[in-house]
Amino acid sequence: MRTERRRFSDLGEFGLIRRLTGLVVSRRDVEVGVGDDCAVVRVGDQRLLLTTDALVEGVHFRRSWDRPAGLGRRAFAVNASDIAAMGGRPRYALVSLAAPRTAASNDLTAMLRGFVAAAAAKGCVLVGGNLAAAPRWVVSVTLIGEPCGKPLLRSGARVGDLVYVSGTLGGAAYAREILLGYRTGTRRETLPFRRPAARLKLGAALARERMASAAIDVSDGLLQDLGHICEASGVGAVVDPSRIPYARSLRRLSDEKRQTLAMAGGEDYELVFTVPQANAQRLARARADTPIACIGSIVRGSNVRVVGAQGTAARPTRGFDHFRR
Amino acid sequence: MRTERRRFSDLGEFGLIRRLTGLVVSRRDVEVGVGDDCAVVRVGDQRLLLTTDALVEGVHFRRSWDRPAGLGRRAFAVNASDIAAMGGRPRYALVSLAAPRTAASNDLTAMLRGFVAAAAAKGCVLVGGNLAAAPRWVVSVTLIGEPCGKPLLRSGARVGDLVYVSGTLGGAAYAREILLGYRTGTRRETLPFRRPAARLKLGAALARERMASAAIDVSDGLLQDLGHICEASGVGAVVDPSRIPYARSLRRLSDEKRQTLAMAGGEDYELVFTVPQANAQRLARARADTPIACIGSIVRGSNVRVVGAQGTAARPTRGFDHFRR
Repeated sequence: MRTERRRFSDLGEFGLIRRLTGLVVSRRDVEVGVGDDCAVVRVGDQRLLLTTDALVEGVHFRRSWDRPAGLGRRAFAVNASDIAAMGGRPRYALVSLAAPRTAASNDLTAMLRGFVAAAAAKGCVLVGGNLAAAPRWVVSVTLIGEPCGKPLLRSGARVGDLVYVSGTLGGAAYAREILLGYRTGTRRETLPFRRPAARLKLGAALARERMASAAIDVSDGLLQDLGHICEASGVGAVVDPSRIPYARSLRRLSDEKRQTLAMAGGEDYELVFTVPQANAQRLARARADTPIACIGSIVRGSNVRVVGAQGTAARPTRGFDHFRR
Repeated sequence: MRTERRRFSDLGEFGLIRRLTGLVVSRRDVEVGVGDDCAVVRVGDQRLLLTTDALVEGVHFRRSWDRPAGLGRRAFAVNASDIAAMGGRPRYALVSLAAPRTAASNDLTAMLRGFVAAAAAKGCVLVGGNLAAAPRWVVSVTLIGEPCGKPLLRSGARVGDLVYVSGTLGGAAYAREILLGYRTGTRRETLPFRRPAARLKLGAALARERMASAAIDVSDGLLQDLGHICEASGVGAVVDPSRIPYARSLRRLSDEKRQTLAMAGGEDYELVFTVPQANAQRLARARADTPIACIGSIVRGSNVRVVGAQGTAARPTRGFDHFRR
């Protein structure tokens, strides 16, 4: 007999979020709690979107990968992406920053300047902050946003809906391999990782026009994130790999490697969303100039299957889960 | 000639917050931005209080000092204290948690359970969370609250106002010395550090009855925090050490040591507030059963002076600034 002592890393981030969800008390003003991209709460005559995310040095980034201002911009974008996935616009930001005592104050200010500039460009203002000493940089961000129309949840996908993705996929994972030194590449090719686009215009348009039945952002990998939609909606999905908009940087890779990066790589911060077929015609107008591609459809079942032109089904590859890697 | 490269630790936390304040864009819906205990924003027909604070393992706490649930309770209390200092009530909480991959998942869940229980007891609900791997525990909390009346700012103190403090001071600093092994003491004597009271009832009553002209919570030490009121209000203050409500655990210490712990120790999370003399009579009713003591008054000038019965002035001792220690 041995004592079983489960560790965080065995459980995985999602296991813990599931446990966390069990802890949460329900209240009438909390329309959506833990478990979607943002919480939705009702304050007075207004709905608010609330989200928090952290970048940890050595886990999510290395200091050598970008200038401090770039880190600040990225810290805003990865959080704004959660607001985008709910169809909202970010309004207020708080940054809780931990850094070593030896950190250059100019680096910290530059990081915050990058954050503030990126936020301002999207109509969001920094209203609070906190600074603490820690062995490594940890940039924890909270954004408070307002929904543009009915918030886009993960739970609204229905059998027959089409699955869309914005922009291109795999570029961030490819960039991370360059930054980690696993492959050679140009500085430009690292941009998809360093400067993710939060698809705020698209998300807002989808919510305003009530085009999408469900949405999520691709932070952990297409298959895993689409899997969250399936789980929350009680449906399955089929994805056609030949219809995935692969990042240009992947063009010289083998099919298998390209598909792995695009479907399991994560951190592209594009939107994956489902659209009732009746809305598909009007979608071209509603996409707010953002490139989108239809990559599959929602089916009965409970998981995401990758089915190519030859009808072969590939087993979904695992996404990016910080506590498993 | 040598290159000057300022470090975070040279600048101090407050220097950085001052720099940060310079970065912030003003907007009509942001009534109070960075630099008070909370930001105050106007959303629809409602005002919101926003605040964030982090507890870093090895800086703010050691794992051995308390059970995980206690850490969770404390993480809520130190943030709720900022809401109390603005005269508000906490409504929504987000926790961004970083912990080592080897952390026991039960410890993480227990921490969150402690947080959720402490929040629920004050009418606050956990609506969002994030989990990431990091070398040490970092518990970053954001609270969203609602003001009970006009928010209490740091900037409203006027010459002639009386200075009050709630509860007792120095107990948390004394407790920290026990926890650090610098002195012996009972487990009970460590409670002021481990279970700070966020003075939510008092803060709400002061705001509702418009009793106080300014308020702040004692996180960095009485003199430093009262100094923030003085700076923001453009006034000075005089404190009489014989009127300070010293924590019971300090009773066997020398006068000097007792005063140092009570005035510079920090982390008591009591409220320091200023009251126009015209309100002093009514204060007894408005204090919401919380013990309070008048310890001095607001004067012309720009700093906090400690003046004893003998008229001797002691130089203010420095407070707790994480980047200087």
